[in-house]
Amino acid sequence: MLTVLVQVWVHADQIEAFRAASLENARQSRQEPGVARFDVLQHHDDPTRFLLVEVYRNPEAPAAHKQTAHYQAWAETVAPMLAEPRSSVKYTLLGPEPLAP
Amino acid sequence: MLTVLVQVWVHADQIEAFRAASLENARQSRQEPGVARFDVLQHHDDPTRFLLVEVYRNPEAPAAHKQTAHYQAWAETVAPMLAEPRSSVKYTLLGPEPLAP
Repeated sequence: MLTVLVQVWVHADQIEAFRAASLENARQSRQEPGVARFDVLQHHDDPTRFLLVEVYRNPEAPAAHKQTAHYQAWAETVAPMLAEPRSSVKYTLLGPEPLAP
Repeated sequence: MLTVLVQVWVHADQIEAFRAASLENARQSRQEPGVARFDVLQHHDDPTRFLLVEVYRNPEAPAAHKQTAHYQAWAETVAPMLAEPRSSVKYTLLGPEPLAP
């Protein structure tokens, strides 16, 4: 499955606000039919660094995600929190199947 | 939960062998009590680049993982396949909880 890793670096005084906004966005994103996983991670040694791991069920799902109200609200909310523009890299989740242990 | 992202770059003629060995290692690793997730990903645009996403239930679990026979067999098997030494970065998986959608 297509997996998008989004790397985010936020200002130090925005860590908690970014964390809260992103967890809420993740909760809502998981309700999308095309989303298999949507997790929020924080760098172990640098709390200003976050990683969103977004696993999609089909190739159209990322674009559908960006059309949702919750994504658009999140993107607008967090924009001023960012220390640099977000970047992303695409992977394919090979498995093993099934995904759960 | 502690999450270790292991970045791997393999020789082009070792892609399938690395994939197979790593999926088998992931299947066995998921049976460890300290492992919450163990996934194998491949870069979308460069099939020689892999990423292991290892989510551990407690701080001792990564060391316990490295003591297992399946980890040691995997490390030995894949060593000659690597184009450069493996590297890893640690994150904390914040959630949202529960992890499943």
